[in-house]
Amino acid sequence: MTNIGIRPALPGDIPAIVAMLADDALGSTRESPDDLAPYQAAYERLQIDPNQLLVVADADGEVVGTLQLTIIPGLSRKGSTRSIIEGVRVHSSQRGHGLGARLIEWAIEESRRQDCQLVQLTSDAVRTDAHRFYERLGFAGSHVGFKLQL
Amino acid sequence: MTNIGIRPALPGDIPAIVAMLADDALGSTRESPDDLAPYQAAYERLQIDPNQLLVVADADGEVVGTLQLTIIPGLSRKGSTRSIIEGVRVHSSQRGHGLGARLIEWAIEESRRQDCQLVQLTSDAVRTDAHRFYERLGFAGSHVGFKLQL
Repeated sequence: MTNIGIRPALPGDIPAIVAMLADDALGSTRESPDDLAPYQAAYERLQIDPNQLLVVADADGEVVGTLQLTIIPGLSRKGSTRSIIEGVRVHSSQRGHGLGARLIEWAIEESRRQDCQLVQLTSDAVRTDAHRFYERLGFAGSHVGFKLQL
Repeated sequence: MTNIGIRPALPGDIPAIVAMLADDALGSTRESPDDLAPYQAAYERLQIDPNQLLVVADADGEVVGTLQLTIIPGLSRKGSTRSIIEGVRVHSSQRGHGLGARLIEWAIEESRRQDCQLVQLTSDAVRTDAHRFYERLGFAGSHVGFKLQL
C-alpha cells in the first residue's frame, strides 16, 4: 500500500472530492461534477467555520478519500460536545484496503482531541455493508435518522 | 392556550432548559440538574458560534420548550447546507398541545431562511412515539443513526 496521509482539503482537491461524491450508488443521482461552482462556494463556507473540518486522504499526491467532521457544542448530556461525520468516501481504486477505517479512526481521534464525548453519523438504511463497517469500528446503530428535503 | 413565543435562549434560561433535558426517560440518567456549571460552559460555546441556535419556547415568561439548531455547510449534494436539530424538549405541563410541532416548524422555517436544502435529526430507536411525530411533520426515517461514546 502506498503512503497515505490525511490532511485538510485544499481548493485544488475539490474536483477529486466531487468525483468521489458522485462515484457512488446514491451520490450519482445528486451530484453535478461538471459544474464545480456550487462546491467551490460550499468550500469557502467551510473554510470560515472553525468547527468544520473537511479532510482528504492523500496517496503520494492523489486524493483517494474524504470526509467532513463537524464539532457541535450543546447543553444535553451535561454540556457534551459531539462531532458529526458526513460525506465519507473512498476512491474505488482503494476500496477494501482499510482506508475507510483509517478515515473514521482519524475522525474519532480528532473528536477526542477536541474534547467531544460523542461521535455520530447517519447512514442510509440501504447501505447495509456500511452499517456492518461502522459497527466493527465500535458505533451502535441505536437511532433512526430522519431527513426532510426543503 | 397561553401566548407562546420562540426566542433565543438567554443565560437565565439554563436552569429551566436543563430541568427539561433531565425530565425525560433517557435524559434522567445522563443529566445533572444540580450542577449547572458544565451547561453554562456549553452555553458560552454556543454563543460564540453563529451556526448554533439554541432557542426556547416562552409562555408568558416561563420556559416551556427548547431545541438546538445547527447549520452545517458541506460539499455533498451539490454543495448543500443542511441543518441538524438536537435536544428537543417540551415541558411536561405543555405536552399534547402542539408545542413540539411548533418548535420543529420553527426549525424548518429558520433552516429555509438560512438556505438549507435538508433538515435532519436522529431519534433513539426506542422513542417510537417521536418517530410517528416526525413522520407526520414530513420527515422520512430513511437512515440509521450511529453513535460512539468517547
